[in-house]
Amino acid sequence: MKFEVSILGSNSAIPAFGRHPTSQVLNHDEQLYLIDCGEGTQMRFKSLGIKYSRIEHIFISHLHGDHIFGLIGLLTSFNLLGRQKALHIYAHLPLQESIHQQLQIGKTKLNYLLQFHPIEPDSTGILFQSSKLKVFTFPLSHKIDCNGFLFEEIFKLRKFNPEKAAVFNIPKEHIPAIKEGANFVMEDGTVIANELITEAAKACRKYAYVTDTEYLESIIPYIQGADLLYHEATFDNSLEQRAAATKHSTSTQAGMMAKKAGVKKLIVGHFSAKYKSLEGLLKEVQEIFPNAELALEEKVFAI
Amino acid sequence: MKFEVSILGSNSAIPAFGRHPTSQVLNHDEQLYLIDCGEGTQMRFKSLGIKYSRIEHIFISHLHGDHIFGLIGLLTSFNLLGRQKALHIYAHLPLQESIHQQLQIGKTKLNYLLQFHPIEPDSTGILFQSSKLKVFTFPLSHKIDCNGFLFEEIFKLRKFNPEKAAVFNIPKEHIPAIKEGANFVMEDGTVIANELITEAAKACRKYAYVTDTEYLESIIPYIQGADLLYHEATFDNSLEQRAAATKHSTSTQAGMMAKKAGVKKLIVGHFSAKYKSLEGLLKEVQEIFPNAELALEEKVFAI
Repeated sequence: MKFEVSILGSNSAIPAFGRHPTSQVLNHDEQLYLIDCGEGTQMRFKSLGIKYSRIEHIFISHLHGDHIFGLIGLLTSFNLLGRQKALHIYAHLPLQESIHQQLQIGKTKLNYLLQFHPIEPDSTGILFQSSKLKVFTFPLSHKIDCNGFLFEEIFKLRKFNPEKAAVFNIPKEHIPAIKEGANFVMEDGTVIANELITEAAKACRKYAYVTDTEYLESIIPYIQGADLLYHEATFDNSLEQRAAATKHSTSTQAGMMAKKAGVKKLIVGHFSAKYKSLEGLLKEVQEIFPNAELALEEKVFAI
Repeated sequence: MKFEVSILGSNSAIPAFGRHPTSQVLNHDEQLYLIDCGEGTQMRFKSLGIKYSRIEHIFISHLHGDHIFGLIGLLTSFNLLGRQKALHIYAHLPLQESIHQQLQIGKTKLNYLLQFHPIEPDSTGILFQSSKLKVFTFPLSHKIDCNGFLFEEIFKLRKFNPEKAAVFNIPKEHIPAIKEGANFVMEDGTVIANELITEAAKACRKYAYVTDTEYLESIIPYIQGADLLYHEATFDNSLEQRAAATKHSTSTQAGMMAKKAGVKKLIVGHFSAKYKSLEGLLKEVQEIFPNAELALEEKVFAI
């Protein structure tokens, strides 16, 4: 089952050196989830050939422009393209009024339902859950309210083992209940424990999204053991003080977080516009956490 | 003296086929004036190598997204780049509150003065005037309040003719007043008429910007004889009814307007996303008005 993230924009506040403001699209089993939406995101979909009409849920970390200025254009393009299915936005509350106001000044009426789900400041909890994926949010520490996200697969059902089950001659109609964990009761009343006829579901993969924030160990419990962690690394290590002053993280701090949280792989982004080359920054990350890459535009990372 | 317009975006509502939403930058004697600001305008400056920090005046025709969604990103980038000089925006009033609200949700405080000059709906008049250029606005007919602009050079001063003037032995200190139209009075009281010692300033060039609008002959007096007319041609001629319903113009109508207004050259833009090739549309324009071109991205037109 596909679970991958495509990078649409990797830069911080100002676009530079061909790098665009933050946006990513997550594909889980062909369901698309948009994470942040900097200016130009809709153009990036086109250049990457992503069918963005399939997006139904958009998660916004915080309300700085480099994470939201592409949203209103995307919403109105959906409308012009004839969208009818609902769109869900998960973000801090003031965005709702801003969207409303921007539509109003152009006298634009959306022909689809725009469902806004406010993220409470400093909140922790599940924002969204389907039968296949859940999205958990946790607070970060930035200059304005900011949240991280954990996208976690759900495999509720255990895997039915036909070979083992054949021994007990189990009728087909019992299988759904067994997949959900029920034991099988034979005609003579004998109870066959579920574990004898099923196997555990495979491990649920996790993608953690952490931007913008200063180095923050309190998030470790939420991102622990993630298969892939995206962590901002706005500055290189020499600019630790500037990172602290602007409540951002350095390369080394991103590596430290990945190491302490025991994630499998780290990708870093949200680069300052001051860097033409990012090789030095990546090197600093890898000195702490070797399995790390730059989350550059057009890259796709399997989770 | 340079007077030219660079096309940053040529498409209507939805970006398509590499064409972006509307934006143009006018260079008059190295002063830059921005006209409309669709999403991605700031990226377009970078790809065209335009020093956009030099922009001091922005003119917005109307508040549909494809003409304004790049503005907030540009304003905040100016701020992040350390801008201190004032920026003037000429637009319909509701944009002011929208900008304010978008800055507020990100807790962004601009470090430069943003001076908003409201355009009154259905108004006609001078929006801006320097010693070299004036900008005149006139109402168009679209689904929401929409204005066109005429950018006209000013040559206040007549050209001093040193050869003719030598005959009358005119002292240097009299020249500035003569350039402004004064006669020269000789010591014996003889009046030398200004026309004898100066020549008329060369013709003032004019650029007319007309988008979005249905075909509207009432604007002819304002754009009459322009050196260059940009007129929208959202649809080809076969879609005249659709153009009328959406209050846009067709290729043929753009050509008609150029012809009736007696302009020297026509460029057309604001193309519908339905066109991959624009050759057919251009042909229809040129059948009515031969000196016409497509106002495509990255093209620069001398005025």
